[in-house]
Amino acid sequence: MQFRPVKEQLDILLRGVAEIIPADELEQKLQKSYDAGIPLRVKLGVDPTAPDVHLGHTVVMRKLRQFQDLGHTVVLIVGDYTAQIGDPSGRNKARPRLSHEQVLENAKEYQQQFFRVVREDRVEIRYNGEWFSKLPFSKVTELMGQFTVAQMLEREDFHNRYVSNSPISLHEFMYPMMQGYDSVAIQSDIELGGTDQKFNVCRGRDLQMFEKMPLQIGMFMPILLGTDGKAKMSKSLGNYVGVNEPADVMYHKIYNLADSIVENWFELLTDVPLAEIKQMMTDVASGKLNPNVAKDRLAKNIVAQYYGAEAAEAAAVKEKEIHSGNAIPSDAKECRLDAGEYKILDLLVQVKAFSSKGEARRMVQNGGVKLAGEKVSDPMMEVKVSGSDQLLVQVGKRNFFKVNF
Amino acid sequence: MQFRPVKEQLDILLRGVAEIIPADELEQKLQKSYDAGIPLRVKLGVDPTAPDVHLGHTVVMRKLRQFQDLGHTVVLIVGDYTAQIGDPSGRNKARPRLSHEQVLENAKEYQQQFFRVVREDRVEIRYNGEWFSKLPFSKVTELMGQFTVAQMLEREDFHNRYVSNSPISLHEFMYPMMQGYDSVAIQSDIELGGTDQKFNVCRGRDLQMFEKMPLQIGMFMPILLGTDGKAKMSKSLGNYVGVNEPADVMYHKIYNLADSIVENWFELLTDVPLAEIKQMMTDVASGKLNPNVAKDRLAKNIVAQYYGAEAAEAAAVKEKEIHSGNAIPSDAKECRLDAGEYKILDLLVQVKAFSSKGEARRMVQNGGVKLAGEKVSDPMMEVKVSGSDQLLVQVGKRNFFKVNF
Repeated sequence: MQFRPVKEQLDILLRGVAEIIPADELEQKLQKSYDAGIPLRVKLGVDPTAPDVHLGHTVVMRKLRQFQDLGHTVVLIVGDYTAQIGDPSGRNKARPRLSHEQVLENAKEYQQQFFRVVREDRVEIRYNGEWFSKLPFSKVTELMGQFTVAQMLEREDFHNRYVSNSPISLHEFMYPMMQGYDSVAIQSDIELGGTDQKFNVCRGRDLQMFEKMPLQIGMFMPILLGTDGKAKMSKSLGNYVGVNEPADVMYHKIYNLADSIVENWFELLTDVPLAEIKQMMTDVASGKLNPNVAKDRLAKNIVAQYYGAEAAEAAAVKEKEIHSGNAIPSDAKECRLDAGEYKILDLLVQVKAFSSKGEARRMVQNGGVKLAGEKVSDPMMEVKVSGSDQLLVQVGKRNFFKVNF
Repeated sequence: MQFRPVKEQLDILLRGVAEIIPADELEQKLQKSYDAGIPLRVKLGVDPTAPDVHLGHTVVMRKLRQFQDLGHTVVLIVGDYTAQIGDPSGRNKARPRLSHEQVLENAKEYQQQFFRVVREDRVEIRYNGEWFSKLPFSKVTELMGQFTVAQMLEREDFHNRYVSNSPISLHEFMYPMMQGYDSVAIQSDIELGGTDQKFNVCRGRDLQMFEKMPLQIGMFMPILLGTDGKAKMSKSLGNYVGVNEPADVMYHKIYNLADSIVENWFELLTDVPLAEIKQMMTDVASGKLNPNVAKDRLAKNIVAQYYGAEAAEAAAVKEKEIHSGNAIPSDAKECRLDAGEYKILDLLVQVKAFSSKGEARRMVQNGGVKLAGEKVSDPMMEVKVSGSDQLLVQVGKRNFFKVNF
């Protein structure tokens, strides 16, 4: 196979990377692959514990895609065995153990989303039960013997749990060994991960050395901050953009991104040349460019990756219409209530717009609630609905509830 | 099966025991066995890492023998899998890993000695590879998940190594789990061990609880002090009496036992009734009984267990003969040298009686060396030997060398 020159490959692959360990070996690996005409094997291990993929996960996936576009092979390890333990990285307690059935179900959902970023060709999907289900006990003890307790307890997450008397189960110490052995089993050249994966990825190198085979290098991508610009993107913090969200919802979330991380998102989530990004940011800083123009470009670029350019344009248009009250966003919640007469505050609580009538009353008094497009001003108002009616409730700018009776 | 009444069994079984965990359950187990007519399964696990059995090991073996004599079943676990890790109990560093072949070889040697104390009937010998070689990886992680890192690091030996930065390999944390799982596999009722085995034996209870089966109790025997009366008996300290040593050597070592532990050895290594032992000790303390009479009885009693009463009497006689220069002990070392002329100091170094000529000279000058029964007085003396001669070299009271030419 004929690859692009190493220098060109490096230009693409180094974009956005936080760290490579060891730093100097990527070029050597690429050169060797180029000379021999053999693709590199680029590993990503995932535990499909919670299969919802968001843009934070795509930072690594986009890097895999770059490797594929350059002719290399991606090996996706689905950790059906490791998921039963759960990666303790960055955790402050043991994860609940998942059943094997649950893990396989999650894995299916995960892959559907994974392939929205990664090509379906040039990929090898391997479940690590393939080797772990057959690993003899004597091999387990041999592999465990390659690591020390102190080495594990130096890891920040384990260390913190140990000193704060939060229990660490012994099987959690097996996790890094398992992730490392995955690299042995698939003869990985490069393992990708977030910077929180450094410890585990280096264990793969250890075990490859123990097995006297060529050593993988670790390539670490930064952890993406969520839309609030403050914390790591995560579903539970509500600062995420899911790859399965509708185009207009995706657009809306990105268009309202915290200013401080627009540049970082451009670098990690788009192919816009770095020089162009720099120029945009300079222009925004000097007042020459409205920051919303930059965000519109970012939002359209990302939406287009998942839905195409046309859908991205449409999402931008819809964003304006929703803003001026002429459209309803795709993530409006729907629910069903019995026909009859409702006091407006009861209705708002029943559709779960508010958790108490007190909260609902304050919002009505502040003019933040609309019923079928009309502002509600009287908190004592009554609403009468008969079967097959649909009622649109709007709370604040963007919180819509379609109520069916 | 009809057993002796529980009270009678307890009288025998409680002799010399250091601790039972939980203390009140032995009587219950015995009662249940008595009522149902079913023998108890009494477990001892051994790692045949170094197969030389000495009297220290027999303290536990004699207890097993008592259980057998009362009709119960001994289950000897030969840790062919655990031995490959090595019990870290009381250790300050990881043991070297043994090969499976070496372990099996050691196990054979071990059993030959084991059966000098334990009956060959009413015993079940199980190699733990029987279950560990088939233990699936998912089960390993499940079992490991029953223990915590903190629990392991509370163990004194692990704790000391951790705080002194002496590495603990992760596979050593698997050892207590393995010993515990042995108890599950063989459905142990009682596990025997030295007091240094408390931690591991209690892990067996943990795993039996996890597997929802009846829980074993732990019965712990004291650690026997060596002939010096100071340190735990051990081959490397030279304060041991091996069960395979010749009768006269055994007798000699016991007859020269430190006074302070004669009573303890009587209790742990003989069946002499406790009241009789007490009386003897009182008589020795008051000067009514020569301590050597007590030691002679102890030595004869123990030698008789291994070689019979007649051999024990003969050993006592021989001890006196050696003392008066009329006999050579069985542990005299033998070696072969070329015929020719030797300076006496060279000869002494060549037969390894001394490591330097300086040492040899001092001993000769002190009158501590005999050649063929004659004291050597001249350190410059020359000895001429021709083929097929045998020369007897004696250093001090009891160190003999038979030199063949």
